[in-house]
Amino acid sequence: MRILGIDPGLATMGWGVIESNGYKEKLIQYGAVITYPRDRFPTRLASIERNVKALIETFKPDEIAFEELFFSKNITTGIQVAGARGVALAACQAYTDKLYEYTPMQIKQAVVGYGGADKHQVQMMVRMLLGIKEIPKPDDAADAVACAITHAHAGAGREQFRIK
Amino acid sequence: MRILGIDPGLATMGWGVIESNGYKEKLIQYGAVITYPRDRFPTRLASIERNVKALIETFKPDEIAFEELFFSKNITTGIQVAGARGVALAACQAYTDKLYEYTPMQIKQAVVGYGGADKHQVQMMVRMLLGIKEIPKPDDAADAVACAITHAHAGAGREQFRIK
Repeated sequence: MRILGIDPGLATMGWGVIESNGYKEKLIQYGAVITYPRDRFPTRLASIERNVKALIETFKPDEIAFEELFFSKNITTGIQVAGARGVALAACQAYTDKLYEYTPMQIKQAVVGYGGADKHQVQMMVRMLLGIKEIPKPDDAADAVACAITHAHAGAGREQFRIK
Repeated sequence: MRILGIDPGLATMGWGVIESNGYKEKLIQYGAVITYPRDRFPTRLASIERNVKALIETFKPDEIAFEELFFSKNITTGIQVAGARGVALAACQAYTDKLYEYTPMQIKQAVVGYGGADKHQVQMMVRMLLGIKEIPKPDDAADAVACAITHAHAGAGREQFRIK
């Protein structure tokens, strides 16, 4: 099964595609959709929409796993990031309704075995689990890959993580 | 000039289309895009995307005016409404970059002449300005029409209301 992981954001939306046979994962590709503060907000959203649709067309994932939004204390930023997530969700939903979501703590628990793990521990485990030499960069891409692994490991219990 | 006004929301997204010659407005049509809590959030977003795109294709507005989001104290609701707004913005941006935004107070000021006006006063003025018999329903549609009128009245000063 092919899983697309997405770490939603406005300036940087990390993504990673893995292939899982149920007990082992292989990394296919990862990256980040970048938008620029010099562009207007609707322009950035339209760019995210196009890029997420292109990712889906390229990789044709069976299921898509989102990292849950960390809510900013800055309301303007929060509204913008929530808008970017909404655009990504709508683009994915137009392709498949197999959309799931995991909190940062659930991802740490699944990948490191400890919900309080730090970013470095998560990245080291991602590297080991996938048998790759380098940690995916930027961090948002590594987070997206970790999210995809979390979904692969959720197995039969994944339905409880379906986005409602 | 044809203006599409939008009052963003998840359950009810009000809209109204007016034609303005710079000093007088004519109402073309209004309505609301409805989504249901029984459906999953991504499904509702995808429905909003399709409906907003259909509106744009039908009415081919020259400019689009959004009512600024009232930010809910409920964070989950706030993230969802901001997501719905993001999807609407992306759908509009794919068609035109002439997107503007007005706060509820700016709309009341423009339509009633007083930023502290209540909902009823705004609706009565919308009815009078457009020379229509009935107040548009639901309230979200009336708000969207008021937003479009506000944009028509902004005249040459409208650039300051462009969504950045």
